[in-house]
Amino acid sequence: MRVYNFSAGPAVLPEEVLKKAASEMTEYGGSGQSVMEMSHRSKEYEAVHDNCAALLREVMGIPDNYKVLFIQGGAHMQFEMVPLNLMVKGKADFVVTGQWAGKAHSEAKKYGTANLIASSKDKTFSYIPELDSASFDKDADFFHICENNTIFGTKFKSLPETGNVPLVSDMSSCILSEPVDVSKYGLIYACAQKNMGPSGVTIVIIREDLIRDLSDTKFPTMLQYKVYDDNNSLYNTPPTYSIYMCGLVLEWVKNNGGLAAMKVKNEKKAAILYDAIDNSKMFSNPVNKPDRSLMNVTFVTGNEDLDKKFIAGAKAAGLVNLGGHRSVGGMRASIYNAMPVEGVQALVDFMKKFEEENA
Amino acid sequence: MRVYNFSAGPAVLPEEVLKKAASEMTEYGGSGQSVMEMSHRSKEYEAVHDNCAALLREVMGIPDNYKVLFIQGGAHMQFEMVPLNLMVKGKADFVVTGQWAGKAHSEAKKYGTANLIASSKDKTFSYIPELDSASFDKDADFFHICENNTIFGTKFKSLPETGNVPLVSDMSSCILSEPVDVSKYGLIYACAQKNMGPSGVTIVIIREDLIRDLSDTKFPTMLQYKVYDDNNSLYNTPPTYSIYMCGLVLEWVKNNGGLAAMKVKNEKKAAILYDAIDNSKMFSNPVNKPDRSLMNVTFVTGNEDLDKKFIAGAKAAGLVNLGGHRSVGGMRASIYNAMPVEGVQALVDFMKKFEEENA
Repeated sequence: MRVYNFSAGPAVLPEEVLKKAASEMTEYGGSGQSVMEMSHRSKEYEAVHDNCAALLREVMGIPDNYKVLFIQGGAHMQFEMVPLNLMVKGKADFVVTGQWAGKAHSEAKKYGTANLIASSKDKTFSYIPELDSASFDKDADFFHICENNTIFGTKFKSLPETGNVPLVSDMSSCILSEPVDVSKYGLIYACAQKNMGPSGVTIVIIREDLIRDLSDTKFPTMLQYKVYDDNNSLYNTPPTYSIYMCGLVLEWVKNNGGLAAMKVKNEKKAAILYDAIDNSKMFSNPVNKPDRSLMNVTFVTGNEDLDKKFIAGAKAAGLVNLGGHRSVGGMRASIYNAMPVEGVQALVDFMKKFEEENA
Repeated sequence: MRVYNFSAGPAVLPEEVLKKAASEMTEYGGSGQSVMEMSHRSKEYEAVHDNCAALLREVMGIPDNYKVLFIQGGAHMQFEMVPLNLMVKGKADFVVTGQWAGKAHSEAKKYGTANLIASSKDKTFSYIPELDSASFDKDADFFHICENNTIFGTKFKSLPETGNVPLVSDMSSCILSEPVDVSKYGLIYACAQKNMGPSGVTIVIIREDLIRDLSDTKFPTMLQYKVYDDNNSLYNTPPTYSIYMCGLVLEWVKNNGGLAAMKVKNEKKAAILYDAIDNSKMFSNPVNKPDRSLMNVTFVTGNEDLDKKFIAGAKAAGLVNLGGHRSVGGMRASIYNAMPVEGVQALVDFMKKFEEENA
């Protein structure tokens, strides 16, 4: 029996997507092969590859002057690639709202000046700092945010006004969760394994004027966006099966009403869970209310032993991966697109029962 | 119906492995989740991850002073990582026996002096050059070869005598095809998608004394072997499903007699195909006989139109991906471990029929 999986990533995928993948595992369409076995230079695979990119364009409404790239190495590789490719003048602005935002900031220092515009570290990243655009460097190469903070359960509800400075957003844990206006960004990146598919592929959506020719530099070839763009992300063998799976998930998103419908469902799920926390005497959510994430809901009892008992009890009840990130402890329920309302309801029911039994 | 797939990579996988993966797609073991959905920090995934590394160690007989790392980005990323990590004195020796060996050589020039010891470019890489160890740099950081040349169908049948200089081998297209003495190498790398699993993961087997601490340098964190070694290849989310699939393939190799048995079967398949070519008046193999690859068998008719007709006819008969690499044309049959003897026999039968009909 399948469990309700609240993992922050890799994370739950739609069961019907998994069933479709299983049914096509030994023979995809009329090809007589698994997608996994297809030459990446074959027409059959090219169709899978291009279909995934086209679906992402359609579902997110990506304008024509943006390119979609498939890259390996996770968001961590983007912590390197963004400054390596985008730092022309050698300076960029960063808002540090959590561990990954902090890592993006510190890695960028290898490539130039990485200004810290604001941080919420003073209160364990439990809020999104208010930003004064007067403090932004009008001449920076880019302005970086981590839009949804997976570990701490916060999200930017409005975007910084960066003017002509390209906004770069790590959307790893909120991509596809609601509609976005891609034209407001210079570059969006997201590892697939939260809301889009399995690990092993990262999506980069980049405004084409930001793609620089670095072929005369000593930068690693595999870290240059232009190499991916020039070759339709087929410079070398891409992670073909991961891309195929993302295509299946995107098809599922499209067939279920697209991002507008995802948003409605995600708001409903989040409301059920936050209401349960707010109405509880045992559980509390440490996040500044207006900054609460739709995707990652953190909560604590205030007692570490009780937290552990809750996590173990929930697991026994088929509600798994509810432990908070190893750096912060407590509980975290990641409720991505593929988590059904029933899963959140089951969690809330378990929380009530646990509270009654452990009051 | 499944075809016989002669793709050079991604390539055919054992049908029973694919069936097992399909049967576990929605629920792996008693976990109630797909492997794809598992948190990479969960005990369930850790067992999958460690099992793959342990099986590789067992099947290849990897000594204890070597580490097994799982890295993204394909062999191309190793063209960067090998010189970046291993060039201490800033010089290395290269033998260029094909396109990928050439790329490894040219990328290394970014990091130091990359000496060209020998090349077989003069005869379209149709042979492995004889090497005079007196010409090797005794003080080099490493000596690099591409052990099996996928595009041209050649293979090193003996290793260069590099003394104390660590031998680095790109084994992408010959790993697991026969037993090897790992202790003769400093570092072995191989992308998975030829003989080990799906694309998206590359195996690095490195002698532990070659792992340098580069944390104080400006080199990209994700390109430092030590970061992978220090974190059991779990510094960030690894390509979990690709690693799981490699584990299933390694289990299959083990259950089918290990590398000694693979070698016997691979020699049998190669003999059937090379004999058919050598006994044909239409087909010929351009490779110097002693240097012929067991894994990638190239052949031509000498007439481009006839080559195309052959490839199209074979495809119609269920023998697919027989076109040579786009850079060389002609035909190439990749006959990795998962290609059954029956597939090679079917190809040979088709070749005979084609020759009769087109004499």
